[in-house]
Amino acid sequence: MAYRPPVEEIIASMRVIGADRLTATDLFAEATQETVEAILAEAAKLAAEVLAPLQRAGDLQGARLENGVVRSSPGYMQGYAAIRDGGWVGITADPEHGGMGLPLTLATAVGEMMSGACVALALNPLLTQGQIEALTHHASEEIRALYLPRLVSGEWTGTMNLTEAQAGSDVGALRAVAVPNGDGTYAVSGQKIFITWGDHDLTPNIVHLVLARLPDGPKGTKGISLFLVPKYIPDAEGNPGPANSLRALSLEHKLGMHGSATAVMEFDGATGWLVGAPHDGMAAMFTMMNAARIGVGVQGLGVAEAAMQKALAYALDRRQGRSLIEGGTGSIIDHADVRRMAMTMRALTATARALCLDTAFSHDMARAAAEPAAWEARCAFLTPICKAFGTDVGREVSDLGIQIHGGMGFIEETGAAQYWRDVRVAAIYEGTNGIQAMDLVARKLMDGGAAARGLLEEVAGTVADAREAEPALTVALETARAELARATDWLLDAPLNDRFAGASPYLRAFALVLGGHYLLRGARLMPGDARQIALARFHIRQLLAQVPSLCATVCEGAAPLYALDAEALAS
Amino acid sequence: MAYRPPVEEIIASMRVIGADRLTATDLFAEATQETVEAILAEAAKLAAEVLAPLQRAGDLQGARLENGVVRSSPGYMQGYAAIRDGGWVGITADPEHGGMGLPLTLATAVGEMMSGACVALALNPLLTQGQIEALTHHASEEIRALYLPRLVSGEWTGTMNLTEAQAGSDVGALRAVAVPNGDGTYAVSGQKIFITWGDHDLTPNIVHLVLARLPDGPKGTKGISLFLVPKYIPDAEGNPGPANSLRALSLEHKLGMHGSATAVMEFDGATGWLVGAPHDGMAAMFTMMNAARIGVGVQGLGVAEAAMQKALAYALDRRQGRSLIEGGTGSIIDHADVRRMAMTMRALTATARALCLDTAFSHDMARAAAEPAAWEARCAFLTPICKAFGTDVGREVSDLGIQIHGGMGFIEETGAAQYWRDVRVAAIYEGTNGIQAMDLVARKLMDGGAAARGLLEEVAGTVADAREAEPALTVALETARAELARATDWLLDAPLNDRFAGASPYLRAFALVLGGHYLLRGARLMPGDARQIALARFHIRQLLAQVPSLCATVCEGAAPLYALDAEALAS
Repeated sequence: MAYRPPVEEIIASMRVIGADRLTATDLFAEATQETVEAILAEAAKLAAEVLAPLQRAGDLQGARLENGVVRSSPGYMQGYAAIRDGGWVGITADPEHGGMGLPLTLATAVGEMMSGACVALALNPLLTQGQIEALTHHASEEIRALYLPRLVSGEWTGTMNLTEAQAGSDVGALRAVAVPNGDGTYAVSGQKIFITWGDHDLTPNIVHLVLARLPDGPKGTKGISLFLVPKYIPDAEGNPGPANSLRALSLEHKLGMHGSATAVMEFDGATGWLVGAPHDGMAAMFTMMNAARIGVGVQGLGVAEAAMQKALAYALDRRQGRSLIEGGTGSIIDHADVRRMAMTMRALTATARALCLDTAFSHDMARAAAEPAAWEARCAFLTPICKAFGTDVGREVSDLGIQIHGGMGFIEETGAAQYWRDVRVAAIYEGTNGIQAMDLVARKLMDGGAAARGLLEEVAGTVADAREAEPALTVALETARAELARATDWLLDAPLNDRFAGASPYLRAFALVLGGHYLLRGARLMPGDARQIALARFHIRQLLAQVPSLCATVCEGAAPLYALDAEALAS
Repeated sequence: MAYRPPVEEIIASMRVIGADRLTATDLFAEATQETVEAILAEAAKLAAEVLAPLQRAGDLQGARLENGVVRSSPGYMQGYAAIRDGGWVGITADPEHGGMGLPLTLATAVGEMMSGACVALALNPLLTQGQIEALTHHASEEIRALYLPRLVSGEWTGTMNLTEAQAGSDVGALRAVAVPNGDGTYAVSGQKIFITWGDHDLTPNIVHLVLARLPDGPKGTKGISLFLVPKYIPDAEGNPGPANSLRALSLEHKLGMHGSATAVMEFDGATGWLVGAPHDGMAAMFTMMNAARIGVGVQGLGVAEAAMQKALAYALDRRQGRSLIEGGTGSIIDHADVRRMAMTMRALTATARALCLDTAFSHDMARAAAEPAAWEARCAFLTPICKAFGTDVGREVSDLGIQIHGGMGFIEETGAAQYWRDVRVAAIYEGTNGIQAMDLVARKLMDGGAAARGLLEEVAGTVADAREAEPALTVALETARAELARATDWLLDAPLNDRFAGASPYLRAFALVLGGHYLLRGARLMPGDARQIALARFHIRQLLAQVPSLCATVCEGAAPLYALDAEALAS
């Protein structure tokens, strides 16, 4: 079956998180319900009609490096042109540079649909958007004037060049260097790996942001600076001129995302411009990464929704065996075990959607609200959860999608396996999910737990609101909430490595509890929608049952994980 | 790093399950510890030196259909010859037909190593072994005399032809027909899909077992008969003669296992011989499938071990960031989150190993013991757990393996992804893991819970034995055991579809509790081995924490899964 953009589900989820509060702000006053729905309808059209048909071709014929030039997958040129011409790259960008100035909440909804339709191509604008964010906040007036209009319009695309062979999660170990040329520019040299969309033939220019060390840069992350290095050096009017000294050395052979070229990039004294202050490159990089982390969580969500749609359509269609239930369809969807998989897929996907939208909403409110501090903290706390849980859901739901297809799931033509392969990287890039969890329990609890407690209070509010209508359900949600609150307190008092030991189960538990809160809110807000209450019941009764065991694991501390020394553990 | 056959771990695991009891039986008196260790050493050599080097080539250049003939992957011819010449195909077969007559327990250990080294090629003898089992128990004297020596020696290989496009898990829906030729043979016609190793160039003949319906066969599974249909019809001396009317129409493009050809087979009035009684084909098929289900669980185990070895070697080697622990290695294995993944991998793999060996051991005792009934029931109960949990572990551990590799895990050259792709089908074929779980809670509880309670008593025995030495640990194991016992009682009283609704979480909980039992037994038996107690503690304290929530889910019944009707759920 073809991908069906889940516009109704997105609108319902926006209602659950109270996204209409954006319209009450000056900054987003124009994002009325009418505008939002019109934009979602446009994006849905793009996703279903233009992007979804490209998904399989991009898998079969991935990006290729031919005579030093990257050739994109069949149809990607037209697909990218449609994204560009629709103005989708600049959806959240400042109207001053040609952007639409819309909330990230809405861009998140659009991103879900683009990723559900064709995640490898949708990844391209995500990188440009991160670069727009970084340049907007950190680049000089000249750079902004020259580059932002072209990035916002999608005329050029952007990349992020962080990783080197010896410097992955440990960015501070990088060796790329930038030497002043004496004319305000720098000669940037080094080899970067895993550069997503590092080269392609979709646009006449590509703008690389490269982390490198100045000659006087101290060791570690505090000596890293950020440079803008265009593929073709533009003249003052922005016309791409001479080729810069950089090239894609090779492309990786990947498990999935074949349509997106992942390049080894070589910079050989390439001309670059400093972005932000010397040695302060990490600040700009974090600006870029925080938005990108939300975007990657959204990729997980988009793929989960698409994989679920395909699997459930198959389950409804596939006749096999006798039905054990009265009035059954005679299809495998009658089977209780298939139902369990289906309900799990729906509950996880709905949770991931609300979580992604809510994280983006906090980001927007941090820009638009009169008192942004609490919103900033809320966004910062939710971001690693959004990234890690969203991508885990992408993997888990696409895995269930294969299982529901049975033998057909293992056959590539079915398409279920491609979702599973493509989305696997999302749990790794932009900081592995382990790194996200560590960020959550270390940096994001440094406020003494204020952001965490704020969210737990929101959950308590939902419990109080639903207590009369759904007594059993609220008891179960409150039990999980209380366990999570206890685990939070435990972490706040624990030494750092004990926190790290509990990081992943804590993140999971937090996401599941938020899911219960979102889904129960949905049931309260939309009492006429049978799906809302059915999913809330399933999630709270069955998925939240895992929370006490997750929280118990959080509080076990680090010692049991180090009972064996490294060599004994590994060999 | 190269695959290291885990001979020591296997010997330890055999000790845990008490495999030495086999030597006390007449049937397996020759399987002394010395013999077992010699055979394991031989198999380890084959796996490490001959099979492991073929794994990647089989992935890169899968089996191909060229001009109607299947060409196997590079080196597979030599790899298969080594398996054949070592006598490994006939390891458990009757010495009367040239087999070694060794226990399935030992064959399971050998199978683990072969699957860890090269699962796509190791799959080939697994099918022949299933066929040997089926023919031994159900074929006529003539067929046995003609075919068994050639299958046991590995001179020919066997296949299973069950599935048709409309008949997967629902075998009874098949349409293939067999019409008597009047000379004792039958003309078999029909199209079968997903035929593993359905054609190849490794041996001069291939023996197909085909399910088809006789002209007077009633509808459903009770009208299905089993036919032996050789690729080349042998003369009385067993020399392959004229080609039979059958062929591989096409090969599937699969997610993994590229080295194993998965064929669409067409039988067009092919000459076949009836195996077993008319309309009784399912009995023979179940003989074949039960052994094969254990073998598939073992595939999951083998891949898990191999994926774990690769990931942990990487974790020990990969330097990244500063160590938070005193005396750390400076590698990522110092990180608590990586440790959690590593300990999880080890605990799950050790559990799967003991479970596979214990299931096979029960199978052996059911043949060798003076009073086989209880062993038969034990084997029948453990078989679906072995298949489903073993293959789930294969998937979960190889998934963690990718995650530990970070970005490198997504690059195919690393090899982590191949394990994940290859093993994915194991949760699907030989009855999906959902079907296994349904079998467990329906058929395997039809004895009133005797087999389940017998296993729970074994767990209680371990608790009693360890109570003094490990008080906290035994309390945790006993808690999980008691929850599982309650869930068992609940299932025994529940209507069938409520059982089915709880099937998958019940199977998972049972496997985890058995894991606690095995690992604690290991710690008691091998007090000098630090790994045993460390893994037991981790498993019982952290993984068994999931058991109460799994059991709570079991007892939720089917109603919540049907809160939405099929169309509302799927669309």
